[in-house]
Amino acid sequence: LFIYERPVAFHDVDAARIVFFPTILVYCHEAIAALFAGAPGGYAAVVLERGLGLPTVHIEVDFKAPLRFGDVTRIELDVARIGESSCTFVLRIGKTGEDGQVARVRLTCVCTNLSAFCSVPWPEDLRRILEPHRPTPSGLD
Amino acid sequence: LFIYERPVAFHDVDAARIVFFPTILVYCHEAIAALFAGAPGGYAAVVLERGLGLPTVHIEVDFKAPLRFGDVTRIELDVARIGESSCTFVLRIGKTGEDGQVARVRLTCVCTNLSAFCSVPWPEDLRRILEPHRPTPSGLD
Amino acid sequence: LFIYERPVAFHDVDAARIVFFPTILVYCHEAIAALFAGAPGGYAAVVLERGLGLPTVHIEVDFKAPLRFGDVTRIELDVARIGESSCTFVLRIGKTGEDGQVARVRLTCVCTNLSAFCSVPWPEDLRRILEPHRPTPSGLD
Amino acid sequence: LFIYERPVAFHDVDAARIVFFPTILVYCHEAIAALFAGAPGGYAAVVLERGLGLPTVHIEVDFKAPLRFGDVTRIELDVARIGESSCTFVLRIGKTGEDGQVARVRLTCVCTNLSAFCSVPWPEDLRRILEPHRPTPSGLD
Repeated sequence: LFIYERPVAFHDVDAARIVFFPTILVYCHEAIAALFAGAPGGYAAVVLERGLGLPTVHIEVDFKAPLRFGDVTRIELDVARIGESSCTFVLRIGKTGEDGQVARVRLTCVCTNLSAFCSVPWPEDLRRILEPHRPTPSGLD
Repeated sequence: LFIYERPVAFHDVDAARIVFFPTILVYCHEAIAALFAGAPGGYAAVVLERGLGLPTVHIEVDFKAPLRFGDVTRIELDVARIGESSCTFVLRIGKTGEDGQVARVRLTCVCTNLSAFCSVPWPEDLRRILEPHRPTPSGLD
Repeated sequence: LFIYERPVAFHDVDAARIVFFPTILVYCHEAIAALFAGAPGGYAAVVLERGLGLPTVHIEVDFKAPLRFGDVTRIELDVARIGESSCTFVLRIGKTGEDGQVARVRLTCVCTNLSAFCSVPWPEDLRRILEPHRPTPSGLD
Repeated sequence: LFIYERPVAFHDVDAARIVFFPTILVYCHEAIAALFAGAPGGYAAVVLERGLGLPTVHIEVDFKAPLRFGDVTRIELDVARIGESSCTFVLRIGKTGEDGQVARVRLTCVCTNLSAFCSVPWPEDLRRILEPHRPTPSGLD
C-alpha cells in the first residue's frame, strides 16, 4: 500500500463547484509519479534520461462522491498486477480525516520506449519499486 | 451521431510529448458540453441558471494510440443509453483526416441538482437533445 | 488587428467562480497560436519541424473585470513592435457582445531555436504574418 | 521572506518542452495560497466561509530562463506593499539547488467580497499574515 495525499487546489474546481472529473486522474498520475520518485534520479530521469514512459492504456473509474476546494485528497494505491511490460494499479480515493470513498480507479499502463513508442519489459529497478505494493492475499479483486 | 473536432493545444502534451491522458477526457467533456450548447441559453444556463449539472459517475477508457501536438482530435459521440436521470455516452476518438482510433470512451453521467447534489429526472428539453444521438439499430454495443 | 474568440470552458473557473487569472494568459497564447496558424504547415510545423518557438520573456497585465462561465472571450490582438528576433503583442480582452474591458495584456516573445534555446532572427514568412497586424498610426502606445 | 518549493509536474511542460508560461503564475498562486494557509480554517475557509477572495489586478513578469520537467521550482515571496485593501507581492522564482533566476513576478491583488465583487479592507488576521513578509529596509525593487 502506497499513500499519496494532496489538497484540492483553488483552480481544480469547475463551474459546478466540484473537482473537475479529469483532474482526479491528474491526482492519480501524481500518485504514480510519487511512487516512481524512488527510481535512480527520480521519475524525471526515467523519462528524460532513459527515454521510458508509462502511457495509460486502460482506465475504469467509479466516482462516488464529489471533491471540493478545502478537501485533502488521500489516495491509497495498490499494484494489482505486474505483467512483462504492463501493470495495473488500483487507487482508492478518499479525503484525509473522513470516511467514505470519493472514487475508485483501476488503471493499466505499459512500460514504453518513448522514441519507438513500443512496449518494453520492465527494467529490474522499476519492477522492484512496484513489487512491495502488491496487495496482501486477503486484499483486492 | 454527434461530431466534435478540436486541435491539440500547444500545452496539452506532457513530458513524454503526447497528450496527457486526463486531457483526452477534457476533450470528451467539451464534446458533451458542445452537444448541450443547443439547450435554451446554452450549457452555461443549464448549470448557472437552472442549477443542473452532469457529474460523471463512471468511465471506461481504452487508449489505443497517442495524440500529439499538430493532430486535430475528432470525437464521434453516441448516446448509448438514456435512463430516468442518467445517460451513457460512447465516444470514439480519432484524428481528423486519418484512419485508426486514438481512444474509446464509455462515460455515464447523472443529471444532478447541484444545490442538493442529488439526481433528478432529465428535463424534457435536455432529453430531447440526447435522443437524436441514439445509435441506429445496427450500431453499438 | 487580429480577432480571436473563444467561450470560457466549464473548468476554467476557480473556487471564486471566475476564470483563474493564469488561464486568461492561456487564452492569449491561443490567440497568438491562431495568428501563426497561417504559417506553412500551421503553428505545429513551426515548432515540431522547424524547431522554433516563441517563449514569452515579458508580460504586463491589467485585469479590469472578471470573466465567468457563460462568457465568450473576445481578444483583439495588435503587434505593437517587431524587432530583429522579438515582438510585442498588445491584447485587449473583452466579452463578445458586451462593452468594457476584461484585461489588457502586453506580451513580448522571442523567436527561439528550441534546440540551442537561443534567439534567432524572425524567418521572413513569420515576419510576414506579424506585419499586417501593426496598428494604424492613430493607434496604440 | 516566505519560501515555497514544488517540483515541475509531468504535464506542466508544453510542446517546446519547457513549463508553459502561464503555469509559472499557477505556481505563484500556489505560493500565495500557501502563505494564507495560516489563516483560521486555511485559505479554503477564507474563500468559502468568509466569502473573500484575492483577485489579481496587475502582474508584471520577466521570464529569464526556462523551467523543465525534473526541476524543483523555488519561489521566494516578499510583500512589497500593503494597502487598505490591496497588496503587492514580489516573487523571485528559481530552482532548488541552483543559482540563477527563472522569473521575477510582481503581482498585485485586492481583498474582495466575492458576492458583491467589490474591494474590502484587509481583515486584521489576514493583514497579520502579510506583515512579517515585508522586506527588510535593505531589500527590494
